[in-house]
Amino acid sequence: MRRAMAEAEVGDDVLGEDPTVNELQKFAADMFGMEGALYVPTGTMSNLIAVMVHCRERGDEMIVGDLSHIHVYEQGSSAQLAGVHSAAVTTLGDGTYDLDQLISKIRHGYPDPHYPRSRLVCVENTHNIQGGRVLPLSFLQELRSVADKFGLAVHMDGARVMNAAVALGVQPSVILQHCDSVSVCLSKGLGAPVGTMLGGSKDFIQRAVRARKALGGGMRQWGVLAAAGKIALSDMIGRLEEDHRNARSFAQGLLQCDPPLYHVDLTTVETNILRFRLRDTQMSPAEFCERMASVDEEEVKVLGQGLQVLMFPHVGGTVRAVWHLGISEEDTQLAVLKAQFVAQQHKLKSIRAA
Amino acid sequence: MRRAMAEAEVGDDVLGEDPTVNELQKFAADMFGMEGALYVPTGTMSNLIAVMVHCRERGDEMIVGDLSHIHVYEQGSSAQLAGVHSAAVTTLGDGTYDLDQLISKIRHGYPDPHYPRSRLVCVENTHNIQGGRVLPLSFLQELRSVADKFGLAVHMDGARVMNAAVALGVQPSVILQHCDSVSVCLSKGLGAPVGTMLGGSKDFIQRAVRARKALGGGMRQWGVLAAAGKIALSDMIGRLEEDHRNARSFAQGLLQCDPPLYHVDLTTVETNILRFRLRDTQMSPAEFCERMASVDEEEVKVLGQGLQVLMFPHVGGTVRAVWHLGISEEDTQLAVLKAQFVAQQHKLKSIRAA
Amino acid sequence: MRRAMAEAEVGDDVLGEDPTVNELQKFAADMFGMEGALYVPTGTMSNLIAVMVHCRERGDEMIVGDLSHIHVYEQGSSAQLAGVHSAAVTTLGDGTYDLDQLISKIRHGYPDPHYPRSRLVCVENTHNIQGGRVLPLSFLQELRSVADKFGLAVHMDGARVMNAAVALGVQPSVILQHCDSVSVCLSKGLGAPVGTMLGGSKDFIQRAVRARKALGGGMRQWGVLAAAGKIALSDMIGRLEEDHRNARSFAQGLLQCDPPLYHVDLTTVETNILRFRLRDTQMSPAEFCERMASVDEEEVKVLGQGLQVLMFPHVGGTVRAVWHLGISEEDTQLAVLKAQFVAQQHKLKSIRAA
Amino acid sequence: MRRAMAEAEVGDDVLGEDPTVNELQKFAADMFGMEGALYVPTGTMSNLIAVMVHCRERGDEMIVGDLSHIHVYEQGSSAQLAGVHSAAVTTLGDGTYDLDQLISKIRHGYPDPHYPRSRLVCVENTHNIQGGRVLPLSFLQELRSVADKFGLAVHMDGARVMNAAVALGVQPSVILQHCDSVSVCLSKGLGAPVGTMLGGSKDFIQRAVRARKALGGGMRQWGVLAAAGKIALSDMIGRLEEDHRNARSFAQGLLQCDPPLYHVDLTTVETNILRFRLRDTQMSPAEFCERMASVDEEEVKVLGQGLQVLMFPHVGGTVRAVWHLGISEEDTQLAVLKAQFVAQQHKLKSIRAA
Repeated sequence: MRRAMAEAEVGDDVLGEDPTVNELQKFAADMFGMEGALYVPTGTMSNLIAVMVHCRERGDEMIVGDLSHIHVYEQGSSAQLAGVHSAAVTTLGDGTYDLDQLISKIRHGYPDPHYPRSRLVCVENTHNIQGGRVLPLSFLQELRSVADKFGLAVHMDGARVMNAAVALGVQPSVILQHCDSVSVCLSKGLGAPVGTMLGGSKDFIQRAVRARKALGGGMRQWGVLAAAGKIALSDMIGRLEEDHRNARSFAQGLLQCDPPLYHVDLTTVETNILRFRLRDTQMSPAEFCERMASVDEEEVKVLGQGLQVLMFPHVGGTVRAVWHLGISEEDTQLAVLKAQFVAQQHKLKSIRAA
Repeated sequence: MRRAMAEAEVGDDVLGEDPTVNELQKFAADMFGMEGALYVPTGTMSNLIAVMVHCRERGDEMIVGDLSHIHVYEQGSSAQLAGVHSAAVTTLGDGTYDLDQLISKIRHGYPDPHYPRSRLVCVENTHNIQGGRVLPLSFLQELRSVADKFGLAVHMDGARVMNAAVALGVQPSVILQHCDSVSVCLSKGLGAPVGTMLGGSKDFIQRAVRARKALGGGMRQWGVLAAAGKIALSDMIGRLEEDHRNARSFAQGLLQCDPPLYHVDLTTVETNILRFRLRDTQMSPAEFCERMASVDEEEVKVLGQGLQVLMFPHVGGTVRAVWHLGISEEDTQLAVLKAQFVAQQHKLKSIRAA
Repeated sequence: MRRAMAEAEVGDDVLGEDPTVNELQKFAADMFGMEGALYVPTGTMSNLIAVMVHCRERGDEMIVGDLSHIHVYEQGSSAQLAGVHSAAVTTLGDGTYDLDQLISKIRHGYPDPHYPRSRLVCVENTHNIQGGRVLPLSFLQELRSVADKFGLAVHMDGARVMNAAVALGVQPSVILQHCDSVSVCLSKGLGAPVGTMLGGSKDFIQRAVRARKALGGGMRQWGVLAAAGKIALSDMIGRLEEDHRNARSFAQGLLQCDPPLYHVDLTTVETNILRFRLRDTQMSPAEFCERMASVDEEEVKVLGQGLQVLMFPHVGGTVRAVWHLGISEEDTQLAVLKAQFVAQQHKLKSIRAA
Repeated sequence: MRRAMAEAEVGDDVLGEDPTVNELQKFAADMFGMEGALYVPTGTMSNLIAVMVHCRERGDEMIVGDLSHIHVYEQGSSAQLAGVHSAAVTTLGDGTYDLDQLISKIRHGYPDPHYPRSRLVCVENTHNIQGGRVLPLSFLQELRSVADKFGLAVHMDGARVMNAAVALGVQPSVILQHCDSVSVCLSKGLGAPVGTMLGGSKDFIQRAVRARKALGGGMRQWGVLAAAGKIALSDMIGRLEEDHRNARSFAQGLLQCDPPLYHVDLTTVETNILRFRLRDTQMSPAEFCERMASVDEEEVKVLGQGLQVLMFPHVGGTVRAVWHLGISEEDTQLAVLKAQFVAQQHKLKSIRAA
């Protein structure tokens, strides 16, 4: 990938003249089954541009899941910079939300001046906070019907939609046929250093070019990066299956730990994100993560080596682990070993303390 | 009140030189137990100014009840015009919300750039959509503690806070001691044609003057209206008790209707707003309201007169009735009569149809 | 006017049901020769609404005179609240601007993403900072041609457009035929305590209702004020001629002062605003205004009475005087007397000091 | 530079853990003589972040040159996204502006609610539209005094400030000592594919990190690009002298063309941008540029080769040529040859047509 970057042919993308960027955009649009695609620096900007284009008149409102990345992790930029009000629906455990609740949030009274105008509904696939859950195709189909009925656009924050496609065993376009626009990250599991593709209709993309420029995301010779992005999309999707396998295999390893310290719901492990709980409230998720990331003498003695495993405490008292390009099957097995060791060590300490 | 308006002494309030406005503002501040108060055209502007002053830096966020007037009925102006993102907590049946849920919405990760900065939490008292419910003083006290702990300001949309004060039998300042700012409507039950008082600290009011001007709410010789506002605050609060009595008496009347058509939870009738349901799903709230507002020949024959009663279908399949200055005890008794007649008539029709 | 207010029939204008407001709006629309008119609290809000409706998509830009009220005195609300960028053209001495400069500010490169989209051009008539200057009809006609050619809307900040109509001896609609929207103040010379009429097409007004509500300018029973507004529009325009006469007569009085202290360009005195300079730089405009507003013993001795005259130091070292409903011909003659006295007194002091 | 990119060590810059980015930022801050620097995707974003940080309260205003890049070419994003109103001063031919005019634009009346609050004044160095003009150090020093006196921050759009430093023969920090923040492009003459450094105080940079994230400019593993940026700053500044020499040499070549077709003011050629006019109005700047960019048979016959030279028609009927990394001394001499040829060919055609 670095070699492709070093050899990329570039031009001025602000003028639409960077051949590598143009090639990437064409490739992505075809893959998404959409009229066009635009290369943007980050997923946050990509989502923000989508909000700006769909909700382009003052007084437009969008509906989002209350645990979605857009609502929680993007500094409220939809309101801060785009002046778009949000109505939040309750994100369910599988990343979907109740469509009746969605309908209740649509401003049926418009143009009554008490109300903003509902324009856009957003989904996230796979869902980050809910642990990489894949949105069922049937949900997307029903959502599309509701959106059509009420004249709403559907934007998918599809940062990890390639993981969803792999998990479902379908082409991305099968998922994206239900969406007016999508934002797909080239980094993360796909391995590009930076960059996100924003897909949509021709008119959408033309407007998106303006929004990207206003936000300061219109770069000139960035074919250098686009070269990496192209490889991410064309060659790296296949490897996501490996991340999913590793995540599942680690989850199973946790369940088999003796003594039993970990609580995992295997049915929720669909892609490359794993959330699990500790059965013993004596150890907090933060302490556990710190323990997994550090090595003591005893570990070296028992396991024959020191293993550092990075995980993070997450929403609702869980621990969160994510698999990507840099983590092999062997790394995963070693991580199970470490988790097993930590569980045993914790039990011994508890016994001594008692 | 009209006479007071006709005789009011006026000046240029943009320069702070309208004596009638100044007198009203001083009176309101004293009544609220706050350092200052500002006369603004509407409750919507008053709430928006409060948001603008409390959340005055880019990236500030507020927390509001998902059924609050600010969130539902003000066209999303907090985002649209002020760029302030909202996090919504679930409004409970009594107008409060769960404080643990509130705490979970505060951005504990700030200044992590993923997050906006939590600055403000809003309450509504009495709560409009929830049927004029009065916020318990204990709730406000606990809310104040949470706000203090996390450095948040508390704004009360107190459009009907005078109803709350009357219902609780306390001075308004007893309620408002827990708030940094409050918006109190002079119209509605208090009978002034227009106008709202925005109370807060001296610094808050100085900034509010600027926000009011930017929004175009800085009027010049509007002492004419302020004269009515002064009477609303000084002479009309006592009469709210009458509205509350009438609402309760009507609710009791509904319960005693034979045949029983109406479902009312008397424990929720605290002030001047009544929400009730129809026991028979054969008649929709909209049909019922239309029926109450219209008169047929039979009614004149049976009741000896035609009675028109205005109510509105409301959130969640309810019917909503509101009492104010223009509705007397006698009107209320007549309305019970009409409701009784409609119930009987509906029963007869159902029997014939069967 | 106060009596009309006291007797006004009112209703809920948020629902469009206040008969007095409706009557006023119909009357104004007919007078302006426009499809509709909307009653709004202030001129500042009226101008802001016009900007919000004409520039309703993100990235819209307006072109304004650099000395216009909108650009200088409205707290930058077009950018602050509406996110609309301004390109400023140089306001000329007569309140117009150079149309070639205007054309140069239009974004001919759009949709090149470097540029916002030019949507609106604003004029001010009569022009406040330039001393109540009346825009020539020929200028408006040419401006209309330019606007049509480049697809721009024309908004007139016509706070004092009635003064312009009186000065030109034409119906307001003759002026307004060149504009897509206009904002006309009912206060100031027309004598209503508050209120402004915003005129435009039917579609414009429908959108303006929403913008007014978002800004918090949607009042309920404000027919009380509308009653005064109606009288302002129907009965008070004739009297503006008197203000113009008084302004001119005062200006002539200043020129005849002996010793000569005042510099006035009579050709610029077209309506009710007068700007003049002091010939002697020993006395600052601020000192002069203070002197005119205060009375000393000598004045009482010489003139037989004390006269207080309110004027303000203005842009570019001038003094500004404004005539309105409250200033009679007699008041004006007394003011000349005072100006004469101040000039003499100043000369004597200068001689003594030398 | 590509090799450095291929070998760069990266990390997650959103967490501040990309060593290559950190090294670049440290290097830039030291070079600027400022407490900190932040790597951002583009100059447009960098300027917008500066505006957002300096003008961070609602109602803040900035003062900019009317021909500055920020005012003309950034889609009005300061208003559109940041809600910041602009007051424009007249950009003079040398890129400076009159400081008395600047002072007249400062809102001396604040906190009078009619006015926004003046917070920021921007300069551009070298000045793009004015043809790469270098701001005199004495101007910057006086500007600093004015800014200090009135409590304004000074931001320099220093996209080409390195050209200014080279032209003045001083360290960048000598220029930047008069500024609170600066935006410096790594692309253009310095040769990096993308990227801009934003310099300022520690507090400024902390806030800038948040603004960058909200705009969607917070990338993760972009050390790949930062590696190129580092080389741009450390190794490429010296070479700017060559661009300046080539621009001047080309300008002299134009003046020596026979027949004389080109009008150039040599005193304005200070850096790498050249603006010139055509003496013959028969040929428009657009036609001329097209001619320079295309090759005909005659040219190949006369010159022995075809030469394509890219220039653009520019503001005010000029032609604009820019030198950068990719244009050598030899290219420049060939371009003179081509300009000479075009002049001769044009004369012949004119003669034939006559």
